[in-house]
Amino acid sequence: MTAANGTTAGNGERATRTGRRPGQSGAREAILTSARARFAEVGFDKTSIRAVATDAGVDPALVHHYFGTKQQLFAAVVELPVDPEATLGIIEGAPLDQLGATILHAVVSVWDSPAGPGVVAAVRSMLGGGDISLARSFVLDIVLERVRLRIAAPDDDGRARVALVATQMIGVLVARKILEVEPVASMPIPELVAAVGPTLQRYLTGEIDLATP
Amino acid sequence: MTAANGTTAGNGERATRTGRRPGQSGAREAILTSARARFAEVGFDKTSIRAVATDAGVDPALVHHYFGTKQQLFAAVVELPVDPEATLGIIEGAPLDQLGATILHAVVSVWDSPAGPGVVAAVRSMLGGGDISLARSFVLDIVLERVRLRIAAPDDDGRARVALVATQMIGVLVARKILEVEPVASMPIPELVAAVGPTLQRYLTGEIDLATP
Repeated sequence: MTAANGTTAGNGERATRTGRRPGQSGAREAILTSARARFAEVGFDKTSIRAVATDAGVDPALVHHYFGTKQQLFAAVVELPVDPEATLGIIEGAPLDQLGATILHAVVSVWDSPAGPGVVAAVRSMLGGGDISLARSFVLDIVLERVRLRIAAPDDDGRARVALVATQMIGVLVARKILEVEPVASMPIPELVAAVGPTLQRYLTGEIDLATP
Repeated sequence: MTAANGTTAGNGERATRTGRRPGQSGAREAILTSARARFAEVGFDKTSIRAVATDAGVDPALVHHYFGTKQQLFAAVVELPVDPEATLGIIEGAPLDQLGATILHAVVSVWDSPAGPGVVAAVRSMLGGGDISLARSFVLDIVLERVRLRIAAPDDDGRARVALVATQMIGVLVARKILEVEPVASMPIPELVAAVGPTLQRYLTGEIDLATP
């Protein structure tokens, strides 16, 4: 898992420019400030690297140099201590009928890893009164959208399904890592997957009557 | 639903003492302070009205007079704007095979009621860095314990089952009322019950293999 706080550059060509110059950290901070404002105002999807760069008074290439992709820029803005890309890659590679168990296993593994406390702190900060718009954008535009693309069908765009998955995953996070509700808090991951995986699988691919009066 | 912030007295005999006297609000505050410390330190179950009264330097009857039951005292301490008793009563009266749908319907109805914003504010405050010990005690000792008694069997005390229920309910609360993840945020309750009720019912009474290696 790669640190996502801008310590690695996504642009190999510019990564050779390692010398510190006056104003460098100022530009980095200006980019973060602009990005935070844009993401909060219009969400992840409608925020462009170009607009962030313009707001910060820098070249778009410098944004890529410091932060890599838009998603990595977002992770830096919300101070997420992990790059969600690795986890999302695992989820995208899973067989459809194993998607529920795979999501649970991959995501809880991150929470239980050394990076977990940082993730939990970020979530608590957002839930406690911080930037809800950023948390919403992260959940909806980054995590759920990628899962949704796996299950979308002509007659079902999958939005309700991934939102239901979000309810269960958020609840496992809060119960396991914040409230520490036992035995969920100390349940081994395979046991948790056996108990909760079927819930996610049903939400993703099972029969759900969303038109019940 | 009765306001739980000590505006009604649980003790009819003493409720006739309505005249304000010097020191009355001081005693009420002292009781709340003692109760908050006790609940946070040893949890709901191990806190006694007698100990709270001793800490506050008042007679135990005065605690009942101001706050009613221990549960109502707890609700006042966490500034819960509703008395959980009414909702718990509905849940206890439900047929076992309807328990999942009943819990979801009753609890989400409270969140969607005029009292909802107060509940959500209390939850956000607790999750954001406030008294986690109080939140945990409320979830474990009051809400889940009452549900657990409905499903406990000689070979299964139901602890894991109600903890799993907690994960799903907490997640619905956060997704619907805090992050406002659509379409869950604006889903009519019957539709939400059709989608999520079966999850709760499985956790409560279905097949769950909690010993999977």
